Amino acid sequence: MSQKVTPKITYFNFRGLAELPRLICKYGKINFEDIRLNQEDWATIKPTTPFGVLPLYEEDGKICNQSIAISRYLAKRVGLYGDDDWENLEIDSVVDTITDLRLKLTQVFREEDETKKAADQEVLINETFPYYLERLDKIAAQNFGHMAAKKLTWADFHFAICYGMFAFIAGEDTLIKYKNLVKVKDNVESIATIKNWMRERPVTDF
Amino acid sequence: MSQKVTPKITYFNFRGLAELPRLICKYGKINFEDIRLNQEDWATIKPTTPFGVLPLYEEDGKICNQSIAISRYLAKRVGLYGDDDWENLEIDSVVDTITDLRLKLTQVFREEDETKKAADQEVLINETFPYYLERLDKIAAQNFGHMAAKKLTWADFHFAICYGMFAFIAGEDTLIKYKNLVKVKDNVESIATIKNWMRERPVTDF
Repeated sequence: MSQKVTPKITYFNFRGLAELPRLICKYGKINFEDIRLNQEDWATIKPTTPFGVLPLYEEDGKICNQSIAISRYLAKRVGLYGDDDWENLEIDSVVDTITDLRLKLTQVFREEDETKKAADQEVLINETFPYYLERLDKIAAQNFGHMAAKKLTWADFHFAICYGMFAFIAGEDTLIKYKNLVKVKDNVESIATIKNWMRERPVTDF
Repeated sequence: MSQKVTPKITYFNFRGLAELPRLICKYGKINFEDIRLNQEDWATIKPTTPFGVLPLYEEDGKICNQSIAISRYLAKRVGLYGDDDWENLEIDSVVDTITDLRLKLTQVFREEDETKKAADQEVLINETFPYYLERLDKIAAQNFGHMAAKKLTWADFHFAICYGMFAFIAGEDTLIKYKNLVKVKDNVESIATIKNWMRERPVTDF
């Protein structure tokens, strides 16, 4: 009988792009090796990886990158998935929209020209955030405190993780106006396995 | 008996982000309304859309945005999908990696500072492109002229559409060095339904 090896999630010692697959594993009680590389280890390993980026997911000698793709795969295994193809489309669509907003945010923070960065940040806070968050909040209302499919799915997990990042930029005071989105985050964070993980995981800035 | 309404794909009169779902429909002989908005129509319709972006996919009174999510949904319907969950992870992973490369390209072209744009373009052509294309080419070799799962999937369609964009930037001479990637594109473009569509579709710059 072949012995199954514990799967591995490899990333840096941040929540970042690995927190979504980690959270899904914790929710579904999938045992995994939570490998956190320092910069020195990463320099050694990087040339051996598929595209020189993390996180990586390994299972039975197979390896894959891309956080969202890995998360979709794990979500299906643990039941954080849609009941039919249209529900999965709804989930995928809102996941990609949340990712779009996160990308807009990280682009502003990577801008090197300080004048442009200040101007971009103002657009982000005063235009982009309200535009997206109002619409996402309506979706959360229509789905009874979930991001899609009127039930708990990995889209809720994705939003709950991004919430902290959005609140950091737009201000917690601004975020709590979006009551249905707060509900999504609170729903996820009140799950026992998630609550435990949030207590026991390494404390990192982001 | 309820009458099924023809699904709609709404976008501008470009290939752009709508060409992947269009191509998948053409492959699978899903009849759809190919709606192409001019800027005036778009200004009217935009406030009524989920997130003010195109393409949109409509089916039986339901509507969704996000090109990749829509494409995954349609791909499953027409059999351009993996045989198991790991194959679908492979497909999703390489699709997202191809999208990453396309995003790096569009970012350079959106840069407004001409000096920075020239420098970024040099990095793109001399470092980013070779790095990604060598690795993607190896994947295509391992998958016998496909991007994943050793068979024709929607990841091949995604690459075939992006190929033209990559060749435009890196030069057709550079692209043809990646023989396995050329094979992926040629495989897709030799399918009868795709060949017909490429002949009959509106001629647009991109």
